[in-house]
Amino acid sequence: MLRQQIGVVGMAVMGRNLALNMAKNGFRVSIFNRSREKTEHVMAENPGINLFPYFSLREFINSLEKPRRILLMVKAGEATDQTINALKSFIDKGDILIDGGNSFYHDTIRRNQELSKDGFYFIGTGISGGEEGALKGPSIMPGGQKEAYNFISPIFETIAARANGEACVAYIGPDGSGHYVKMVHNGIEYGDMQLIAETYALLKIILGMNNDELANIFYEWNQGELSSYLMDITHKIFTQKDITGKYLIDVIADEATHKETGKWTSQSALDLGEPLNLITTAVFARYLSSLKQQRICASKVLKGPTTKYFSIDKPAFIENMRRALYLGKIISYAQGFSQLKAASAKFNWNLNYGDIAKIFRSGCIIRAQFLQNITDAYTQNTFITNLLLSPYFKAKANDYHQALREVVTHAIHNGIPVPTLSAAITYYDSYRSLMLPANLIQAQRDYFGAHTYKRIDKEGIFHTEWLT
Amino acid sequence: MLRQQIGVVGMAVMGRNLALNMAKNGFRVSIFNRSREKTEHVMAENPGINLFPYFSLREFINSLEKPRRILLMVKAGEATDQTINALKSFIDKGDILIDGGNSFYHDTIRRNQELSKDGFYFIGTGISGGEEGALKGPSIMPGGQKEAYNFISPIFETIAARANGEACVAYIGPDGSGHYVKMVHNGIEYGDMQLIAETYALLKIILGMNNDELANIFYEWNQGELSSYLMDITHKIFTQKDITGKYLIDVIADEATHKETGKWTSQSALDLGEPLNLITTAVFARYLSSLKQQRICASKVLKGPTTKYFSIDKPAFIENMRRALYLGKIISYAQGFSQLKAASAKFNWNLNYGDIAKIFRSGCIIRAQFLQNITDAYTQNTFITNLLLSPYFKAKANDYHQALREVVTHAIHNGIPVPTLSAAITYYDSYRSLMLPANLIQAQRDYFGAHTYKRIDKEGIFHTEWLT
Repeated sequence: MLRQQIGVVGMAVMGRNLALNMAKNGFRVSIFNRSREKTEHVMAENPGINLFPYFSLREFINSLEKPRRILLMVKAGEATDQTINALKSFIDKGDILIDGGNSFYHDTIRRNQELSKDGFYFIGTGISGGEEGALKGPSIMPGGQKEAYNFISPIFETIAARANGEACVAYIGPDGSGHYVKMVHNGIEYGDMQLIAETYALLKIILGMNNDELANIFYEWNQGELSSYLMDITHKIFTQKDITGKYLIDVIADEATHKETGKWTSQSALDLGEPLNLITTAVFARYLSSLKQQRICASKVLKGPTTKYFSIDKPAFIENMRRALYLGKIISYAQGFSQLKAASAKFNWNLNYGDIAKIFRSGCIIRAQFLQNITDAYTQNTFITNLLLSPYFKAKANDYHQALREVVTHAIHNGIPVPTLSAAITYYDSYRSLMLPANLIQAQRDYFGAHTYKRIDKEGIFHTEWLT
Repeated sequence: MLRQQIGVVGMAVMGRNLALNMAKNGFRVSIFNRSREKTEHVMAENPGINLFPYFSLREFINSLEKPRRILLMVKAGEATDQTINALKSFIDKGDILIDGGNSFYHDTIRRNQELSKDGFYFIGTGISGGEEGALKGPSIMPGGQKEAYNFISPIFETIAARANGEACVAYIGPDGSGHYVKMVHNGIEYGDMQLIAETYALLKIILGMNNDELANIFYEWNQGELSSYLMDITHKIFTQKDITGKYLIDVIADEATHKETGKWTSQSALDLGEPLNLITTAVFARYLSSLKQQRICASKVLKGPTTKYFSIDKPAFIENMRRALYLGKIISYAQGFSQLKAASAKFNWNLNYGDIAKIFRSGCIIRAQFLQNITDAYTQNTFITNLLLSPYFKAKANDYHQALREVVTHAIHNGIPVPTLSAAITYYDSYRSLMLPANLIQAQRDYFGAHTYKRIDKEGIFHTEWLT
């Protein structure tokens, strides 16, 4: 009996599209879903394709080559644990479970450990690209046992997106590392989106641009160094009308929603001692936007600036905004990659940052021309401490910081909130400060709590009996 | 046999000073420490005082009135669990364990539940004021079973700091609420300290002030609405010299250290969906300051502004800074109290914000004249959504936001990082924005992930098949 090469559990949109992607690429794929209907629906919609439906877990498992490769595409959290428990009674030692959901990396570390004890392999893999990416080529970030990944890599390398001919997939590292990298990818996505939203507000409010003009600006910007998937869809969004003929963007409520990966990225930064201020600011910006009722009240009683500074050179301001957006992006990625380095050290993952940047180049939501610059930076020097210190990004920062200053100060004078652009310039100025006023904080801590301090003129730990 | 009214486990500085405070106030206090020497040391240093030393846990426990009141002053974390486990074999149902350390509120919730099952009471209490406060009158935030707290309140009300004749202690709420409030207190402390540090940097760099001038400014500011413990110690810090005659502040290393409460406050905000950007920025500012080696490298290759804007009216700029500092503080507390409200709703704590502000007025590190304004605001209206919407703070914000804008933009033009002041103005402008560009974020999310959106012109949840 010819068995299937991989099985997919979970026929929601992501699971279905990944199964179809594999089948179209010639792999024999068993599929299973808790409810029968979804599986039948997939089969009915895709006649004659290499998918093999099963309606009992036992038959599904028995249909697979050994060692079995089983991709779980179920809801992250409890459903993942339940599915793993259900599978455990049917699988054999050496079989490989692959979790392709947006699982919390600590859960992935735990599941990897628990399953290892029973002789099973567990790969936690980030998969980015949304519905369309899953079907046509996603960006894939697998973590877990290397020897198990080797059994999966031929499939993943075939179905992944490609950039410069290279598949956007690489082994990331042990246990939770794949899901961690996907989490940071999503955090970066929060930062990119908020940065774009702030430039949208500035172009609209300060320059009074309409949606067609906005579409043109984002289209133009997308032709240059800002070229990216998010810029591409942003320019298209501004042209979209609803059935009444209105521009859709103007009727969409300004209350951003969120899932958990952005928040997890920030919480991990806090644990690691990493100053991830841009992405965290983007997460908070979403939270603040959702307080619409409070904002309505506040808009009536809290005043904005009286003097408006509208006398600006329009083309120069547009170019400043383009530069501010690009430098904001650079600073956000510098922070994100610095956090990956800290996580790698803490969890002993031995991450390869150049490989990660390569994977991000295509297939995923943050795909962008700019990722090639990050790839190149790590190719030149694997040991970069912070991307802002590498030649290309250093030069860009030196060229563009003045534009970022102009945009942020102009926005603040005009009462327009630019939280992530502000976070970018304060990070930049803090990071390049030889001296910061943290000496005062250390003095205060020693004063009220005897927390001690270091000195700049001699080694050691000091405490002072302060004058009272 | 006359038994003691309360026992204290742990004779490190905080435990010792609290025991002495109680004894001086006429309470009979049993003391115990894991190592004998510390207990003997306390007795030797304080002859003739109402302290009763014990060197075995059994004797210590037997020396106490029932229901027993046992205050644990041990290191937060594992040591607390170990001490609780050791005590459990000696205590009786109805006895009350009180954890006075900086415990993580989730641990306190768990300990309260576990001990309840065995019939023991558990009070988790925040205690602020450092060494001196513990001895002379701290601010106390007890959470746990109300009926158990009633047995302790006479002692706590006697030893606590006083403000306007009222003891700075009140029952906070169930299980982890006391430790949660203390955690937010500490988070607010991070914000206050970073805000002060930023004004220090501006006064020093932009106005070129020396330490004597800085001491004078902070002394003057401390006479007005900024009057607070942290302003008081700040002005004293600038006058302190080391044995070589140098100003101590100038030789203290500019690398801030930290413990866990600031980070926990931010992580909780992220969980609760609360936009706590100021305190979080202060935590990140400490992290960034500690990257001294990277900052040294960056200072050599990343450029600052070329044009400097030093032509300012000095007295006007000083007044602007005073206003910016005060409004920054208002915004930070508004965020912190909003987070308390969200936590209260999530954990069913039924917090009384007016009581909490009252407790903060004296004894603790963030004690300040300004806490009376918060107390008054909640006295006028218990249901304040955000302090910025209450009469006093709304009026101050309207008076001072322009000063905050001037200071932040001036700092950014000059390349001086003011992360928390910037966070304050972006929060202020976001909060008072009737429209934010979050509609674009929702459009993007729906475009790439079919995450749906709400509309401003009709009820419901919508998804669009976007043009590609």
